[in-house]
Amino acid sequence: MRKTTGAIGGLGAALAMSAALGLGASGTAHAEPATPKSLYPPSALVLTVGYGPDDASSVAVQRAVTLSCQPTPTGTHPAPARACAELRAVNGEFSTLTEATESGRMCTKEWRPVTVTAEGIWDGQRVSYEHTFANNCLKNAAVTQLYEF
Amino acid sequence: MRKTTGAIGGLGAALAMSAALGLGASGTAHAEPATPKSLYPPSALVLTVGYGPDDASSVAVQRAVTLSCQPTPTGTHPAPARACAELRAVNGEFSTLTEATESGRMCTKEWRPVTVTAEGIWDGQRVSYEHTFANNCLKNAAVTQLYEF
Repeated sequence: MRKTTGAIGGLGAALAMSAALGLGASGTAHAEPATPKSLYPPSALVLTVGYGPDDASSVAVQRAVTLSCQPTPTGTHPAPARACAELRAVNGEFSTLTEATESGRMCTKEWRPVTVTAEGIWDGQRVSYEHTFANNCLKNAAVTQLYEF
Repeated sequence: MRKTTGAIGGLGAALAMSAALGLGASGTAHAEPATPKSLYPPSALVLTVGYGPDDASSVAVQRAVTLSCQPTPTGTHPAPARACAELRAVNGEFSTLTEATESGRMCTKEWRPVTVTAEGIWDGQRVSYEHTFANNCLKNAAVTQLYEF
């Protein structure tokens, strides 16, 4: 199976393939476990934004959304297609997204920490990511739209 | 502030309020954080089913779905309304759901462990729940439909 690139065309082809594979599997009897496996690795995440520093227990979760990227981008995230494309583009490396900052953005250095988290499954692997921005301006200066909700 | 009930009418009102507050915050200078708070505590979960024993690192995640219960039940879970109703009925006590078993269900005692997990946010609080059934029959004997996907 070829790797999707995050472009919409690639995604469409991947979806068509997933659907075709899914139909094929349900029509045949073979040695699979009683509960059928998915034919693509699941990607299902909960993303949160909260005020507070790194230590998760001290962060008050202000907002939380779901994001699912397989078989189709969906979730309570306001822009699931964009969010999934971003994650595919960096192969699920959440820190790469967080670190890319818009050039020329001016922010104060005030310490009013905003912590973002991503938990769940990306491409079949458990994910537990957390990053603290010193303040909301710096959070908004990140190029990624993953935590814009 | 009145509490929203999860009904569509309540949702509409809550969204309208959020929008109004959001606009107010960006247009005026006061002590609110730049990013408006939600008007209800978020509930956003990733549920997984995998083959393997308790130790999460040894569990191969077979399937994962998202479930969001506020403002309206949604997600890649096949029955979000039912799943959210179950969780509300036990006030988010995941173990209560897992422990309730259909009476008269016969299962072998074969050890072929199936581990279910729930991660994310329930009613504004972080959740990290994991339970291992000795085999898939015992998993299916649980009354809850939370992990039926």
